[in-house]
Amino acid sequence: MEKIGFIGLGIMGKPMATHLVKAGYPVFVLSSSANAAALMKEGAVLMNNSKELAGNADIIITMLPDSPEVESVLFKDGLEHSMIPGSLFIDMSTIAPATSIAIFNTLQQKGIGSLDAPVSGGQTGAEAATLSIMVGGSETAFKRALPVFEKMGKNIVHIGKPGSGQITKACNQIVVGLTIQAIAEALTLAKKSGVDIAKVRAALLGGFAQSKILDLHGQRIIDRNFKPGFKIKLHRKDMKIALQTGREVSVPLPGTVVVASQMDAIIAKGDGDLDHSALALYLESVSGL
Amino acid sequence: MEKIGFIGLGIMGKPMATHLVKAGYPVFVLSSSANAAALMKEGAVLMNNSKELAGNADIIITMLPDSPEVESVLFKDGLEHSMIPGSLFIDMSTIAPATSIAIFNTLQQKGIGSLDAPVSGGQTGAEAATLSIMVGGSETAFKRALPVFEKMGKNIVHIGKPGSGQITKACNQIVVGLTIQAIAEALTLAKKSGVDIAKVRAALLGGFAQSKILDLHGQRIIDRNFKPGFKIKLHRKDMKIALQTGREVSVPLPGTVVVASQMDAIIAKGDGDLDHSALALYLESVSGL
Repeated sequence: MEKIGFIGLGIMGKPMATHLVKAGYPVFVLSSSANAAALMKEGAVLMNNSKELAGNADIIITMLPDSPEVESVLFKDGLEHSMIPGSLFIDMSTIAPATSIAIFNTLQQKGIGSLDAPVSGGQTGAEAATLSIMVGGSETAFKRALPVFEKMGKNIVHIGKPGSGQITKACNQIVVGLTIQAIAEALTLAKKSGVDIAKVRAALLGGFAQSKILDLHGQRIIDRNFKPGFKIKLHRKDMKIALQTGREVSVPLPGTVVVASQMDAIIAKGDGDLDHSALALYLESVSGL
Repeated sequence: MEKIGFIGLGIMGKPMATHLVKAGYPVFVLSSSANAAALMKEGAVLMNNSKELAGNADIIITMLPDSPEVESVLFKDGLEHSMIPGSLFIDMSTIAPATSIAIFNTLQQKGIGSLDAPVSGGQTGAEAATLSIMVGGSETAFKRALPVFEKMGKNIVHIGKPGSGQITKACNQIVVGLTIQAIAEALTLAKKSGVDIAKVRAALLGGFAQSKILDLHGQRIIDRNFKPGFKIKLHRKDMKIALQTGREVSVPLPGTVVVASQMDAIIAKGDGDLDHSALALYLESVSGL
């Protein structure tokens, strides 16, 4: 079994790495946080630094907040110099597609493979090992990583060239954000008009307007349950990546701009830790509800 | 069986009225169009004017393009004066909720019941008798109409008070329009980035971004099939009703405004007869694709 270095043991990384340990992979970790301690109880091995971790690992997985953190681990902490030629770097963070492409190009010159493999499904999906995984990179690298992915997710799609996993994740976040906006506008209009929003949700779910988001977030809005789930401020970060990519390839994203600016208003109010379904709360508040 | 007067034998009204005739209802029609002729072959009876139609009907159904046409039939052609007390007026057109409420109030004073019962599902749903029907009005009137609705649709929901059927339809059109916008922005970003949009659709369908629209319209966009379906210019009319209702109850609808203005751009180009999934064509064209 390939030896795995896992960097980034947050609310996503901890359960993902735990699945790998439990599946019998030798897993090496860096941080001495509480999450790392829990993982070490399962059998993970603590390394002193990224050089030591890289020296022990066939595959290094990162699960970090954003592009700068991934770049810092690779290029500032020197991971790029410590990785063994023939090893594979898999970044499962959601970062800018352009950064993923730059990482691929840099590591390729050193004989190190690289995949961008962002996930969708949140903490629940990470814990249940049912994440969707969108993968960009070579077919060879994808096939090597697939057994590892299968321990963490269910819907695993090799999209294509390096960066295409991140592009797909950006698309996913655009669709999720705009669909929540759609539900929020519809249910706010119904509510302010004095119409039972539970009946509106039921009627719409039976027709062309059906979506997983109308089902789950529609219910959240009815129940006034805005506990995350997926935090507004994290979704806003993903919208930044989508808008930045749109600008790089000259694709205007007028709906995404609207949703991102509403997220900014919610964050400005101090509510950035609420679930992203709280887009409805914002619309309600500016509607005098 | 109740005798039914049916006004508005267009691409929706014709198949809907045909189901009623075939179910054994006596159906009276007004127009002497080709559609009416086809319906008369099935057993519908042609009336000379709305007064004669009203004198024969227990239930009058209208299926017309917009609010002014419904108001014209009722108030200008004098239907309101010809309907028999105790009869029931069912407007299945998509019109302004405020107009539906005004109609309800006017007819109630004459002892005539009234329901707003707009549908979703398009020509295909009308022909297959699988329309979603969203109904506003009294419980008594809803129960009386239900056997008739069941000949034309499947997902029949009594939402609540008069006008609430139209509010729900406006919500439906907001959600459908914004979800198409979401898919269009995502797939245009992917396409311009050189990523296979069929794989993006497949990856997103397996996760939280799933929707009937990603499934059906995503496939249309991949297949370059923009034959209606549901025409942009008709959806634009429904967005007008949604925005007008938003203004009346002071609910800002920023996403709906974006989608409506893109529909205007498509109509200005002369493409208003394309399917509403052609929102993607607009985004592609302004992205230089």
